Amino acid sequence: MLIIGELINGMYQKVARAIQQKDADCIKSLARQQVQAGADALDVNCGPASRDVISDMRWLVETIQEEVSAILSLDSTKPQAIEEGLKVARNKAIINSSTADIEKLEVYVPLAKKYHSSLIALTMDKKGVPQDKDRRLELAAQILGFAQENDFSASEIYLDPIVLPVNVAQNQLLSILEVIKDFKMISTSAPKTVVGLSNISQGSKDRSLINRTFLVMAQGYGLDAAILDPLDQELMDALITAELILNKNIYCNSYIEAYKKSKVSR
Amino acid sequence: MLIIGELINGMYQKVARAIQQKDADCIKSLARQQVQAGADALDVNCGPASRDVISDMRWLVETIQEEVSAILSLDSTKPQAIEEGLKVARNKAIINSSTADIEKLEVYVPLAKKYHSSLIALTMDKKGVPQDKDRRLELAAQILGFAQENDFSASEIYLDPIVLPVNVAQNQLLSILEVIKDFKMISTSAPKTVVGLSNISQGSKDRSLINRTFLVMAQGYGLDAAILDPLDQELMDALITAELILNKNIYCNSYIEAYKKSKVSR
Repeated sequence: MLIIGELINGMYQKVARAIQQKDADCIKSLARQQVQAGADALDVNCGPASRDVISDMRWLVETIQEEVSAILSLDSTKPQAIEEGLKVARNKAIINSSTADIEKLEVYVPLAKKYHSSLIALTMDKKGVPQDKDRRLELAAQILGFAQENDFSASEIYLDPIVLPVNVAQNQLLSILEVIKDFKMISTSAPKTVVGLSNISQGSKDRSLINRTFLVMAQGYGLDAAILDPLDQELMDALITAELILNKNIYCNSYIEAYKKSKVSR
Repeated sequence: MLIIGELINGMYQKVARAIQQKDADCIKSLARQQVQAGADALDVNCGPASRDVISDMRWLVETIQEEVSAILSLDSTKPQAIEEGLKVARNKAIINSSTADIEKLEVYVPLAKKYHSSLIALTMDKKGVPQDKDRRLELAAQILGFAQENDFSASEIYLDPIVLPVNVAQNQLLSILEVIKDFKMISTSAPKTVVGLSNISQGSKDRSLINRTFLVMAQGYGLDAAILDPLDQELMDALITAELILNKNIYCNSYIEAYKKSKVSR
């Protein structure tokens, strides 16, 4: 599974301060720690307090790249900020994110094509977040249809069903799990799937337990990627064990250590 | 989910000794601890060392019933021992287990009907444990077909796909998860599903982590019951959280404590 570390996000005070003060050591340390813990990719979000999101995005990407060679997931509501990140990104990047609205897809799909990047697309539109599986599938079909018409490969799209918090939308979670599998079946070329994991436990007490339990279930349903906190050791152990059960890592007695070593030696 | 505590089993030395010495306190304590930890049912197995499995089964059932009122899962390869347990069981019991062999079903289905009990049926036969999903489904259909011909309700049958150890059959585990869901669809009246959980981690180092990760995935696929160690706190926390995500417990901040209280107050 593609593990996208969530910690370089200006919504965290420490990161917001580091961005404001151009504290490269703080950002590099967060990048290194996440990669050492097993992250394949790093989400990069300047946060709501950024006063110049374009130059902040550039600085973040350049700073992170001085430290690690992870894939970068450029996370902004401003296409200009994402494009600035794409311009300076050394590796293939991920755009985070488009919605299913055609006017958004008309911006982000050409951008993804221009920079040969992947695209996270949320199955929501300006009417809001769907409340059932059918609507999620309808929006997924809209996204994949647009991509096909514009010669953008479905395999470069990460569909995000939008995980809702268990304390407000408990009755929707099974259908969100099932739709992860169903997304694969609505297109001849299968898209990938991603979740922003932490949302499931917003407002709950036992956050780590809820996060890892949902993640393991989603892995069982074929999830391809997750944006999560790789420094949560119990979460990572659960993730690695789920991959073992799904036959994605070779079994050995010390499979957790073996997995971590294989990541760090990259 | 129906939680079947696995600890009263003569394969454990402590239990074998308690059976031999008719140490009722030891058995009662194991019964009480498991029920307090959340077990709905208790598996009862005299173990390989029992010299008189019929009288040992009777003694175990009577002893356990002096302490708790849990459902009993009568676990033996000897139909006479199971019938002895059924005779003295106060509540509706579970027969553990038949295979898909017709000559076994011809013994256990009438027994289940006579004593109004449920029946665990393993999707294996004398040729051995299946190595793929199709064969498991074929054997499940054989079991359900026999039950239908003999007016035994599918809803009283717990189909067990037989979970294999991750260190020997890693490539089969996803299909075992999927077949849990598929079992529900081969009969107009859906059967229930059960796994003997601990088998997944036989011979592995991180047994509890592997057990709880597989259990959560199986819950995601609709598992109805599991034979497990309810004294494994982390396993129970994962199980309860999976039920929360699947909308089977009402959300509250202290959902784990609430779940346990609801069990103990029965």
